[in-house]
Amino acid sequence: MSLNGTYDPDNIFAKILRGDIPNATVFENDHILSFMDAFPQSKGHTLVIPKTPSRNLFDTDPGVLVKLISKTQIIANAVRQTFNPDGITITQFNGAPAGQTVFHLHFHIIPRYKDMALGSHAGGQMADFEDLKEQAAKIRHNLP
Amino acid sequence: MSLNGTYDPDNIFAKILRGDIPNATVFENDHILSFMDAFPQSKGHTLVIPKTPSRNLFDTDPGVLVKLISKTQIIANAVRQTFNPDGITITQFNGAPAGQTVFHLHFHIIPRYKDMALGSHAGGQMADFEDLKEQAAKIRHNLP
Repeated sequence: MSLNGTYDPDNIFAKILRGDIPNATVFENDHILSFMDAFPQSKGHTLVIPKTPSRNLFDTDPGVLVKLISKTQIIANAVRQTFNPDGITITQFNGAPAGQTVFHLHFHIIPRYKDMALGSHAGGQMADFEDLKEQAAKIRHNLP
Repeated sequence: MSLNGTYDPDNIFAKILRGDIPNATVFENDHILSFMDAFPQSKGHTLVIPKTPSRNLFDTDPGVLVKLISKTQIIANAVRQTFNPDGITITQFNGAPAGQTVFHLHFHIIPRYKDMALGSHAGGQMADFEDLKEQAAKIRHNLP
């Protein structure tokens, strides 16, 4: 079952955490990394991941999860201030049939704008990296 | 903006918390209530809400949020054991343009089954209450 399995240390977020792949960083501390989704479903689509490896909600240490949601709340608020969306969806996918494409636990912060449909998840066009870095800088500016 | 506004004490979850509307309870303690979504998007669709009133992620006390996600993890695991889905989506909507229909903070636990599309959120048919109570009892059985 796709909810099981072992953590793949070569998944793309593991590579980002190792610095093997660049990211447009919104926030980083000892436990958490937040960066812009490279395949954004809307303007300002931000990810929040723990540094501790886990595949999904079911193999994540509860203490790690608590840190993750607390920081997600703070970053979502900065995303809100930055892009002034009409809504924000928080999602966390477990297993490919649920929409998970990278098997390292992550929360999506997805701004929603009235009358604007979402782009497809991880199936659309890769965003311009300079644009993402600019967005990340704006969000960082609004972090407490 | 729909992310703002004041808490409406007559929203449907407030009525459920007061006992004015029945619910198929999965879990309850001093801080949290979990129950079956009356308009399930898939079999086993479960909600987790705090008893403390807040509209969304942005007016929720961080301490309440931490309790909510911790219990959501535990209940999602019981949902998983109960229905053996191929995936589970966790969502939390902020603002009507993001899909929020009840303005009391809540996490959705939505089981996903291979080759089975989701029903529409809060737009489908109301589930049979006896069925929901039966599902809730099965999930409760799998809670630690």
